[in-house]
Amino acid sequence: MQVLKAVITAAAPNQNTLPLQQLVDRNGEEKTALQLIVDETLSAGVEEIGVVIQPADEENYRKAAGSSIGALRFLHQEHPLGYADALLKAESFCGDDPFLHLVGDHLYLTASQTSCASQLVAVACQHECSVSAVQSTREHRLPYFGIVGGNSVPRHDGLYDVRTVVEKPTPTLAEQELITPGLRSGHYLGYFGMHVLTPTVIECLHEVIEDPSLERPTLSDAAAKLASRGKYLAYQVHGERYNIGYQYGVLIAQLALGLSGRDRDYLLTELVELLAKRPESSVSAVPNAPAASKGVDQ
Amino acid sequence: MQVLKAVITAAAPNQNTLPLQQLVDRNGEEKTALQLIVDETLSAGVEEIGVVIQPADEENYRKAAGSSIGALRFLHQEHPLGYADALLKAESFCGDDPFLHLVGDHLYLTASQTSCASQLVAVACQHECSVSAVQSTREHRLPYFGIVGGNSVPRHDGLYDVRTVVEKPTPTLAEQELITPGLRSGHYLGYFGMHVLTPTVIECLHEVIEDPSLERPTLSDAAAKLASRGKYLAYQVHGERYNIGYQYGVLIAQLALGLSGRDRDYLLTELVELLAKRPESSVSAVPNAPAASKGVDQ
Repeated sequence: MQVLKAVITAAAPNQNTLPLQQLVDRNGEEKTALQLIVDETLSAGVEEIGVVIQPADEENYRKAAGSSIGALRFLHQEHPLGYADALLKAESFCGDDPFLHLVGDHLYLTASQTSCASQLVAVACQHECSVSAVQSTREHRLPYFGIVGGNSVPRHDGLYDVRTVVEKPTPTLAEQELITPGLRSGHYLGYFGMHVLTPTVIECLHEVIEDPSLERPTLSDAAAKLASRGKYLAYQVHGERYNIGYQYGVLIAQLALGLSGRDRDYLLTELVELLAKRPESSVSAVPNAPAASKGVDQ
Repeated sequence: MQVLKAVITAAAPNQNTLPLQQLVDRNGEEKTALQLIVDETLSAGVEEIGVVIQPADEENYRKAAGSSIGALRFLHQEHPLGYADALLKAESFCGDDPFLHLVGDHLYLTASQTSCASQLVAVACQHECSVSAVQSTREHRLPYFGIVGGNSVPRHDGLYDVRTVVEKPTPTLAEQELITPGLRSGHYLGYFGMHVLTPTVIECLHEVIEDPSLERPTLSDAAAKLASRGKYLAYQVHGERYNIGYQYGVLIAQLALGLSGRDRDYLLTELVELLAKRPESSVSAVPNAPAASKGVDQ
C-alpha cells in the first residue's frame, strides 16, 4: 500500500481567514498556517492534496498556499453540511486510492525525528489498513474529540485494534463502551485529527449521510462502521497537535512551535520580560530591600 | 485645537497580510490587527481615518476593517517611495487640520486608564502644537527608531521640548546631539510610532521630499525641520508599543495583550504547561523517587 494522496478538510465557517494566519516554524521560517499543514502532509510522501473548502474561500487559500500551490486541488463544499459531507467532496479525487486525511485547523508538532504524518503513514503501510492517529485524552476533554475504544495490538507499542468510535461521548457512555485496557485510569484514546483511510471509508460515509437518524454525521460515525467491517487500527503518534481554530489557538500553537525550535532562547527571554512587566504604579511600590537589611546592622 | 482626523501609514511591502492577522484583545474579543489599530485611533475621539496603503492591498484592508469600515478612507501610495512620501498621500485628506498619526504595524497597550492615543491627543490639545509620543530607549536599540533630542518642559512630567530628531542615529551621533537631560544614562527618547501633527508638517514633508541629498526621507527628517520652526513637543505616554511587523511581532504583541487582560490566568496556565512539555524519551528518564526512598527503609 502506498499513500500518495491527502485530503485536508477546511470548509468550516471559522476557517475563512485561518489559512492566512502567519506563523513562524521551528526553523524560524515564516509560513502561513496552510503552508504548515501542507508541509506536514508532504512530509509523509504525499504528492497530491485535495483541500475541501467553501467556494468563497478559494482566493484566500490560493494566496496562503505559496509555493505549494502546485500540489493542491481545491474541492468545494457548497453548503455547510458537516464533516462527513465535507470528506465525501473528495470522493472522486481519491478514487480507489487510500489517502491521508488531516483536519485544516490543527497544527502538528512531532516529538521524534519524523513528522506525525510520516509516523502514521508508515504504520498504515505496514498493516495495510485504515489507521487513525490518537492520543491519550483525559475524561474532562471527551466533549472535544471523537473517542476510540479498542484493544492493544500485542508487540506493537501504541497500536490498537479499534472496536468502536463515538463522537464526543458523555463520561458515562465512555466508561461503558470506550475503555481501552493499558491506558491510565480516566484516560481514553482521542482522535488526533489525522488518519490514513482506505476507500472503504467512502462507502461508510455514504451510509451515514443517508441514515436519517444521524444529524450532520461526522467521520466518527463512519469510522464506527469501518471498525465493524475489517481491520481498522489506531496509533498513538509521538507528537502533539494544536487546534488553531479556537480563540487562543494560533497563539498557543505558535508558542509551542517557537519553544521547541531554533528560537527557544529568544522567546524565553521575551516571555520573562513580558511577565516581569507591571504598571508603573506598582513598580514604585517595590519594597526597598537594601534599606531593610541596613536596619539589622544598626 | 481639536483632533478629528487620523492617518495610519500601512503601505510597506510587508504589510499586505498584516492587517488580516487575527488577535484577541484584552477583553477576549477577536479582532484583526487593523481593527485594534483603528480602535486605538477612535479611542482618542478621531472621527475619520485615512489609511495609506498599496492599491493592491485595499481588498484585504476592507475585509479586515470589520464594522469600522465607515470611518476609513483608503489613500493609495502607488510606489514604495518611503515614509515621508506615504504620509504626503494624506495631504488632501488632512487639509488644514491637525491629525493623529499612527504607524500601521504597531499595537499599543496603555498602562493607565486612557489609551495611549488619548493621552497624546490630550497633551497636543493642551499645548496647541505637534507632539510626538516617545519612550525611553536604550542605546542598543537606536538602530530601530527615530530619536528625539530635547529638554524637559518644567512642571510637566514626561514632556519635552524637541530640539532635533535623527532617524536611526549611530551611538556616537546620539551622544553628541541627542542627549536629553533627565533620562537614565545611555537612554534616549525614541519614537513610539504615534504623533499629533499640525499642517506645518506637510510643508516640512514637501521640503524633505524635494531635497536631493535625502534618499527615501522619513518622518524624522521632516520632524527635524518642524522642531526648528516653532513649538514641537515629545511626550512619554504611559504604555507600551509592540511592533508586529517583524517575525515574532504578532506573537509577542498577542502575549502582551493576553497577559494584561481578562484571560491572564488561562494563558499563564497554558504557558506553564507548554514549558513543562518534554519529548517522551526524557519523561521516561525521570528518576523514580518512591523506589529510591524504599531503599532507605530496607
